[in-house]
Amino acid sequence: MKKFEEKTLDSQSIYDGKIIKVHVDDVRLPDGNTAKRERVEHSGAVAVIPITEEGKIVFVEQYRKPLEKSIIEIPAGKLEQDEAPEKTAVRELEEETGYTTHELEYVASFYTSPGFADELMHIYLAKNIIKLEETIAGDDDEFIDIIEMTLEEAEKCVKEERIHDAKTNYAVLYLASLNWPHLNKRS
Amino acid sequence: MKKFEEKTLDSQSIYDGKIIKVHVDDVRLPDGNTAKRERVEHSGAVAVIPITEEGKIVFVEQYRKPLEKSIIEIPAGKLEQDEAPEKTAVRELEEETGYTTHELEYVASFYTSPGFADELMHIYLAKNIIKLEETIAGDDDEFIDIIEMTLEEAEKCVKEERIHDAKTNYAVLYLASLNWPHLNKRS
Repeated sequence: MKKFEEKTLDSQSIYDGKIIKVHVDDVRLPDGNTAKRERVEHSGAVAVIPITEEGKIVFVEQYRKPLEKSIIEIPAGKLEQDEAPEKTAVRELEEETGYTTHELEYVASFYTSPGFADELMHIYLAKNIIKLEETIAGDDDEFIDIIEMTLEEAEKCVKEERIHDAKTNYAVLYLASLNWPHLNKRS
Repeated sequence: MKKFEEKTLDSQSIYDGKIIKVHVDDVRLPDGNTAKRERVEHSGAVAVIPITEEGKIVFVEQYRKPLEKSIIEIPAGKLEQDEAPEKTAVRELEEETGYTTHELEYVASFYTSPGFADELMHIYLAKNIIKLEETIAGDDDEFIDIIEMTLEEAEKCVKEERIHDAKTNYAVLYLASLNWPHLNKRS
């Protein structure tokens, strides 16, 4: 939808990085006035909610430089150009957790921060994940710990704000809505 | 937690804007190697889930320049420096929807995109919202339409991906978990 469209009068490229590009646009507002819009361009991201055969959720803990601390998240990664989100999902699951899956279900997509960034996050559910026999090397600069939790433990982490990440909070709420613990029973 | 801490060796300021600041850091990784980290600094945001006395959810539709389209969201705004999130919540509710509230409940806080940004989003529930007699002027450059929906209508919008925004998807899932429609009954 283009309601209240803001036409670009001029666009200045501020930064062209590995993960983000930054632009400042001069726009024409619906009332004819002008304004500046700061925006971050991002290729999008994919996250996976991995569930073991025993019904545990697999989380990763990693240092997030923007926050200057390590946080607990579901596995996720940047969508590579022209890559199908399902492929990114399986790759990130394998690299970050050492598990793989043949049961990937689409859950939802959402913009993470539409006020200043175009990042679109795709979320998948991976049931009955299988331990890989050999680990797959991920990014050189990623250091990750794996944490397996029951849904009850994860809900406690959310309540205590030890989990406080949009995709991960969403994932825990989503699993709770699925009438767990029947989710992971093979039928 | 500081597990896998990435010590800053050097930090370059790329952009200092109205909404975001952008930095590129050189960091020392846990294995002794170095890497670059791009990060966006943001003051944080507050969102409100507004529920009318009739049990409808109030959404706003506005143009989001980073997406080049207008989307449906719950009311939200940038946290001003040293401002209590509850105050931002009521102000944004009043400015964006013309409603106010005396019943603000904390729901959750989460980082929207911890891979590249430090934005922390605080979410509140506002029950039994009251129409203001006079409208309050918001930001000059904000053009907003108000959309009131039942939970069922909102869930349909999520399914059809007409709602696809992290805080808003979370809000709809959260309301569904509250054993609606009893949520808004005055007791």
